[in-house]
Amino acid sequence: MLGGILEGDGEVLVTKPGKIEEGGPGTLTFLANPRYEHFAYSTPTAALLVPKDFQPAQPVVAAALIRVDDVYDSLRILMAQFDHEFRPTGGVSERASVDSSAVLGKDVSVGVFSVVEEGASVGEGTYIHPQVFVGKNVSVGKNCTLHPGVKIYHGCEIGDNCILHGNVVIGSDGFGFVPQPDGSYLKLPQLGNVVIENDVEIGANTTIDRATMGSTVIRQGVKLDNLVMVAHNVEIGDHTVVAAQAGFAGSTKIGKRCRIGGQSGFVGHIEIADGTQVQAQSGVAAAVKQPGTALYGSPALPYNDYLRSYAVFKKLPELYKKINELMKRYEV
Amino acid sequence: MLGGILEGDGEVLVTKPGKIEEGGPGTLTFLANPRYEHFAYSTPTAALLVPKDFQPAQPVVAAALIRVDDVYDSLRILMAQFDHEFRPTGGVSERASVDSSAVLGKDVSVGVFSVVEEGASVGEGTYIHPQVFVGKNVSVGKNCTLHPGVKIYHGCEIGDNCILHGNVVIGSDGFGFVPQPDGSYLKLPQLGNVVIENDVEIGANTTIDRATMGSTVIRQGVKLDNLVMVAHNVEIGDHTVVAAQAGFAGSTKIGKRCRIGGQSGFVGHIEIADGTQVQAQSGVAAAVKQPGTALYGSPALPYNDYLRSYAVFKKLPELYKKINELMKRYEV
Amino acid sequence: MLGGILEGDGEVLVTKPGKIEEGGPGTLTFLANPRYEHFAYSTPTAALLVPKDFQPAQPVVAAALIRVDDVYDSLRILMAQFDHEFRPTGGVSERASVDSSAVLGKDVSVGVFSVVEEGASVGEGTYIHPQVFVGKNVSVGKNCTLHPGVKIYHGCEIGDNCILHGNVVIGSDGFGFVPQPDGSYLKLPQLGNVVIENDVEIGANTTIDRATMGSTVIRQGVKLDNLVMVAHNVEIGDHTVVAAQAGFAGSTKIGKRCRIGGQSGFVGHIEIADGTQVQAQSGVAAAVKQPGTALYGSPALPYNDYLRSYAVFKKLPELYKKINELMKRYEV
Repeated sequence: MLGGILEGDGEVLVTKPGKIEEGGPGTLTFLANPRYEHFAYSTPTAALLVPKDFQPAQPVVAAALIRVDDVYDSLRILMAQFDHEFRPTGGVSERASVDSSAVLGKDVSVGVFSVVEEGASVGEGTYIHPQVFVGKNVSVGKNCTLHPGVKIYHGCEIGDNCILHGNVVIGSDGFGFVPQPDGSYLKLPQLGNVVIENDVEIGANTTIDRATMGSTVIRQGVKLDNLVMVAHNVEIGDHTVVAAQAGFAGSTKIGKRCRIGGQSGFVGHIEIADGTQVQAQSGVAAAVKQPGTALYGSPALPYNDYLRSYAVFKKLPELYKKINELMKRYEV
Repeated sequence: MLGGILEGDGEVLVTKPGKIEEGGPGTLTFLANPRYEHFAYSTPTAALLVPKDFQPAQPVVAAALIRVDDVYDSLRILMAQFDHEFRPTGGVSERASVDSSAVLGKDVSVGVFSVVEEGASVGEGTYIHPQVFVGKNVSVGKNCTLHPGVKIYHGCEIGDNCILHGNVVIGSDGFGFVPQPDGSYLKLPQLGNVVIENDVEIGANTTIDRATMGSTVIRQGVKLDNLVMVAHNVEIGDHTVVAAQAGFAGSTKIGKRCRIGGQSGFVGHIEIADGTQVQAQSGVAAAVKQPGTALYGSPALPYNDYLRSYAVFKKLPELYKKINELMKRYEV
Repeated sequence: MLGGILEGDGEVLVTKPGKIEEGGPGTLTFLANPRYEHFAYSTPTAALLVPKDFQPAQPVVAAALIRVDDVYDSLRILMAQFDHEFRPTGGVSERASVDSSAVLGKDVSVGVFSVVEEGASVGEGTYIHPQVFVGKNVSVGKNCTLHPGVKIYHGCEIGDNCILHGNVVIGSDGFGFVPQPDGSYLKLPQLGNVVIENDVEIGANTTIDRATMGSTVIRQGVKLDNLVMVAHNVEIGDHTVVAAQAGFAGSTKIGKRCRIGGQSGFVGHIEIADGTQVQAQSGVAAAVKQPGTALYGSPALPYNDYLRSYAVFKKLPELYKKINELMKRYEV
């Protein structure tokens, strides 16, 4: 199944996956992070997945060692064998509220106390958990999972194979107000929508605002963690991953395959090149033109520059003292 | 309607508002940010809103140019013409749960699976979407919109014309605990409430905690973006705007007409003067007495001071090297 | 009741607790923060709680002064006398959805539109508000309160005396994906759960992800504020308190009795010693071995070191100028 190389007992029975530090009989564990290597020599397990070129420093205590090209990908394949989570095979709860004009594909499940409003459509095999809201004219694709409490405002579009976690909000109004001469603000109507392409996963309590005009767009394969904020008219490129609590201000365009750290923020109206990597807690305040750039700091600098400056920052008190001595001596 | 000056074709038909970079026939676009000016010369549209004093560097390709005093305010007025979102004209869903002691004004809508508990009151014309919770003795004013999943705990008060977006939580307990000699904590009862005045808009998944005693207060015209945290006993002054993911610790008092950047934070028990501007990701750790102060950094400094220091921070590695050479030469 | 010492009128009637700055007849107030001391001399109240050794600088205007060992703990005891919030004494709403296989203890309340799925159990005296979701095989202990909109995914375990606030999500999938050669990601199944021990309180819209394997664990007595993010396989030790909007990346282990500031972040796979104190907005990027360490900055440094460096940071522009003069003069 994995194309791996077996060392040791090929007949050992595996009953569940587990963490290497917990081990135990029947457990299949893995070693990907060298920090955990010592457990390979101390904690007995049924089987242990290791990188193909793994050189044990001591005897490994697992009954079987499986050498593979990509430990995480092999683990993914094996774990899917253990994923027995119940998935209903269709059926609309009598206590859901589905408008008669809504179109549900084959094998769609709609949980109790969920709402599907007029003109909405839900594709084949999609599983809507309880207490979900699918607003007017929303379209949801095939084989999606909408977890409890997801709220999708009117007119938004969700692709196929998307997973939206608990209490996610899609399509809330963008934060647009026009200042008035008396210091108050009037609301700028938010007439656009949110478009989420295929294979997107969105973490719990994340919010994606609808566009003022046009669409806020989450491209194919994007993964957003929990409590992320995506403002109106933002676009996030294919296969970009965003860690928890990051935020994107209005109209910013993020490239493909970027990796965005947790609690980082982006100002509005900038464009970020493909493959950009942003360290956690950074504040990106200007466009990034060079693909593959790594950034850190607030406002963000090139990653290594920030670290070098921060290394001196740590020494500032001592440096300050020396400079003052120098100045005193040379009467500056 | 706008008091603007028309140049070009006054008979051109406009069917929808749009972004200047997308343009197209029938589209009304606008130019407010100079960054987008080049689209005015390249992307044909039906009509283009520009500032009164706009001097085109090249021929504009829009059929009609409309010069106005305030582009955004004109846009706001025009967009309201295109805002056809459905609003029910009243009616309580048979599958809502409204206590018999609750008082609903004229033309109140209560959506399916929403709850209005005993002693609550809801003002005329207010639209409660599905799956909303209005707790005991809550009062909600006139012409409000409570989006799906909003939860308002008992005893809180919401003014007129307020908009609360999806999954907002109002009136959850303040974070108050009393340390005990054994290192554990006991809960300090949170007996106060939240008071939200008129014309307030609150973004998706934002949380506002109830006061320990008295009220957490959001004054008239305040706009809070998504995922904002307002702790117990905080007060936010009239017409202050707060960007996403900002947080206010307990008992802090924010002035009027402040502008608070995203992901910024405020320690508790401080007072912030009117018109304070806080840059995104800043940490405000001390009171601000001078109205109109601009701040940046963590802990926050005067805005320009932070930028000046940060400019030298970037040069620290090079500076460090030079200082070391100097010191070596002069034997410090 | 408090073991305090009374000065003044022992017969004065107290009708409600209040803040010292608001005072008023019938009000019981307290003075714990010296910043508010001046109100003790200006704002009449019925009674005022003060620390045992309080030395008034002027005559106190309260009718009665009560000297106590611990102002906050005395306040806690008194406030509990005023806590009249309605708590139902049991009963399942006819419009809740409780699976026939679910086991409910004595005096359990289940609010309208709440869901308790198959195999779930709920302990004696637990109060489930409306619109709550308790997934398959979840166990909830005794005397818990689940506020409106709480969502608990399948298989998670909640101890006794826990309070979960509005729209909390427990057990959403950890953020685990395996990169593929074409730049896309495939989901790593998240097969573990979340275990929350006794006496834990969790703030509104906080999210706690389920473990990839094993459990994400919140130990006894932990208090999490609003909008906190706890990633998969994190463990948070006994009686640790975490302020709003903080985030913990995967597999990090936080010690006992730590105090974690708001908007702070922790990288994954590190261990933090007992009693660690982290200043708001800090970014903890490395393990902490020494119990009681205080940290600040991003990446975090020892608290005092950060403050000392930051003090020089503020002077950098001036320092830079002087150094340049020095260098010019000495021809570096």
